Amino acid sequence: MAVAEFKPSNSITHLRSSSQLSILSKRLSLTKPCSFRTLSRTQKARISCSVAPNEVQAPAVQTQEPKSKPECYGVFCLTYDLKAEAETRSWKKLINIAVSGAAGMIANHLLFKLASGEVFGPDQPIALKLLGSERSFQALEGVAMELEDSLFPLLREVSIGIDSYEVFQEADWALLIGAKPRGPGMERAGLLDINGQIFAEQGKALNAVASRNVKVIVVGNPCNTNALICLKNAPNIPAKNFHALTRLDENRAKCQLALKAGVFYDKVSNMTIWGNHSTTQVPDFLNARIDSLPVKEVIKDHKWLENEFTEKVQKRGGVLIQKWGRSSAASTAVSIVDAMRALITPTPEGDWFSSGVYTNGNPYGIAEDIVFSMPCRSKGDGDYELVKDVIFDDYLRQRMAKTEAELLAEKRCVAHLTGEGVAVCDLPSGDTMLPGEM
Amino acid sequence: MAVAEFKPSNSITHLRSSSQLSILSKRLSLTKPCSFRTLSRTQKARISCSVAPNEVQAPAVQTQEPKSKPECYGVFCLTYDLKAEAETRSWKKLINIAVSGAAGMIANHLLFKLASGEVFGPDQPIALKLLGSERSFQALEGVAMELEDSLFPLLREVSIGIDSYEVFQEADWALLIGAKPRGPGMERAGLLDINGQIFAEQGKALNAVASRNVKVIVVGNPCNTNALICLKNAPNIPAKNFHALTRLDENRAKCQLALKAGVFYDKVSNMTIWGNHSTTQVPDFLNARIDSLPVKEVIKDHKWLENEFTEKVQKRGGVLIQKWGRSSAASTAVSIVDAMRALITPTPEGDWFSSGVYTNGNPYGIAEDIVFSMPCRSKGDGDYELVKDVIFDDYLRQRMAKTEAELLAEKRCVAHLTGEGVAVCDLPSGDTMLPGEM
Repeated sequence: MAVAEFKPSNSITHLRSSSQLSILSKRLSLTKPCSFRTLSRTQKARISCSVAPNEVQAPAVQTQEPKSKPECYGVFCLTYDLKAEAETRSWKKLINIAVSGAAGMIANHLLFKLASGEVFGPDQPIALKLLGSERSFQALEGVAMELEDSLFPLLREVSIGIDSYEVFQEADWALLIGAKPRGPGMERAGLLDINGQIFAEQGKALNAVASRNVKVIVVGNPCNTNALICLKNAPNIPAKNFHALTRLDENRAKCQLALKAGVFYDKVSNMTIWGNHSTTQVPDFLNARIDSLPVKEVIKDHKWLENEFTEKVQKRGGVLIQKWGRSSAASTAVSIVDAMRALITPTPEGDWFSSGVYTNGNPYGIAEDIVFSMPCRSKGDGDYELVKDVIFDDYLRQRMAKTEAELLAEKRCVAHLTGEGVAVCDLPSGDTMLPGEM
Repeated sequence: MAVAEFKPSNSITHLRSSSQLSILSKRLSLTKPCSFRTLSRTQKARISCSVAPNEVQAPAVQTQEPKSKPECYGVFCLTYDLKAEAETRSWKKLINIAVSGAAGMIANHLLFKLASGEVFGPDQPIALKLLGSERSFQALEGVAMELEDSLFPLLREVSIGIDSYEVFQEADWALLIGAKPRGPGMERAGLLDINGQIFAEQGKALNAVASRNVKVIVVGNPCNTNALICLKNAPNIPAKNFHALTRLDENRAKCQLALKAGVFYDKVSNMTIWGNHSTTQVPDFLNARIDSLPVKEVIKDHKWLENEFTEKVQKRGGVLIQKWGRSSAASTAVSIVDAMRALITPTPEGDWFSSGVYTNGNPYGIAEDIVFSMPCRSKGDGDYELVKDVIFDDYLRQRMAKTEAELLAEKRCVAHLTGEGVAVCDLPSGDTMLPGEM
């Protein structure tokens, strides 16, 4: 679900100005690379960070002055006065939406949805701030050109850039899609480190320049731990504002239950994805409902629920790649829209949605201080609360424990990026990346 | 603007059943291939159809019985009762939208827009009928899977197929995106013939099985003459219902005028694209308005208008390919949405939109019996009327004559596909395909 769009945070040759150099060299001290020892697949991969404990710094609050604004693009550099026209006078205040991986396919679907008003409605003008890499900069221009040519009335500003400190300025939303794809032979631990550096950097940038109440949705994989790294590096932004996207998993789970039950998908509700966005995730058929009834009362084939349902949900991306030859950009973009809408519209009575959120006083007994997908409700104010009336059985508890253990292990792998000491990575070497994702 | 998705209409090996074979062999008699002589670029390419005049048949009214329905897909095969639920009881009657080239990139943007309610609104349930090829069938399944996973409440049916007689059944809209891309060294004449055969076939299929008031938007290139061929092969459907997409050109022209005038794009109105969707097209700066004033009063640089503006509009697709590495699928899909909305919502007072429509009693003195982009207004009932209060000067007239001559020449090239005799193709060999399109 991630697209390769970023400059490596320690690649100085990509930078554009000497002022950027000095700022970056300071930041580099926080993200010294780890040394990896790749072990055989039967052994556990064990990774220790080469940074000595006393070199590891807690994420600092950035005091850096906001730099120059990112480049506006084409027609979006022009001035206009919304208050001067009858049709636009009643519009809301412009909101800034930053999108990373903006030259990738998921963003290519998402940006046009945002610009059309599909998410925020017909009276909400929008500024899009597109973050790409030096390599993708021309492609970013292409995206901006297509946005120009689409003449969306609500789209009032588009800016493009490759420096997150510029692009994230005053962002009300940050949709972090861009991530490095896994290279050949790379274990999850390696991916965690390489992407973790990106998300540490972006967390610092959000902390320094974004709106103090920015809502952050992390899509780039491994998204739960990326979100954790990001929020740890943004101590001045509420940890509650960070989400890891598990909405596509939720949508797929609803669809598979509908198919099995022989009902249309609008009949399935209360679907929770518990835990990590990986193969350890737990689509919860105990609490989900079909036509307001517990799933187990409607689907009598409990063996299917226990043994096949989860795999059906998780294999969906892989099957799609086989069929279509590409990863699921369109439905991922739809699920990002769903995740945003879930926060800005009141959740229907009795229902809930899933999101990977920071565990901090959760009522389910899940370990604190990780990003874990859980059932949420929103009043539509951008915030959420956890749902209390869920039930557990041994089967559900066992599987939740497994995904919790994975997230705790991932957290230990990225301690050098969260300011919590030396990374010790004892992740099992088996691949828990969801099929069809990078 | 076209995607290679079709089986060649004369490729029998791709067919699936013997009943299809017999139907197709009958149809083949109408579409015998022409012999081409490729001449040097300084000469005019001259193409004569090898079909003797007495073999050329006028398009017959199809009496063929509708065949079996196309395959429904997955969750969309399930039954539901909109009248049973409070939320859906007030919804309108389901409409059928057929899309060809459905596995291509333009459709990949468009289908999700249609399904989300962006075009027809929140109370209009939708059935999508996806036409692909034997080769793209698996990709069609992938598209249907992503539509399933998106859980759009309004999307009630998705069916996929490779036979236009199946897929177009009861279609209320037909969005004909699929076309063969131009092969290496292929002249426009060759492209006209190869794609003309597809659109002749699809016209017959629409005539046989679609709604009697189906609205058809042809996107596959060369779209004007493809639309002409299509409507000639569908004599039982009003010719007025066929459109060739010039809306992306209109949108691009508005954007370029806005940029030059230094105003936001919502200030530009009354933009006509005259003629063919090719480099002979005429973006009309004489009648267009900026902030309700004639463009020439706002943009004083008339040399720019005369010498650079049209090229800016036309080169846009080519520049985009350079920047972004792909053709403009997203903004093309937006322009299809715009074209559909233009027909189902009343045109704002004093404004108009452009569409390639059939010339039949036009007030501008344009040759009759071709598909020519002209200024239209709609009451929002799916129909349109031509705008009368436009002005002309010599410059505009000269350029309109050139694009008209091209369309008349294209028509002569496809006489064997419209039932009007022997094709005689005297198109200039210069390439008039818009840059960045296939």
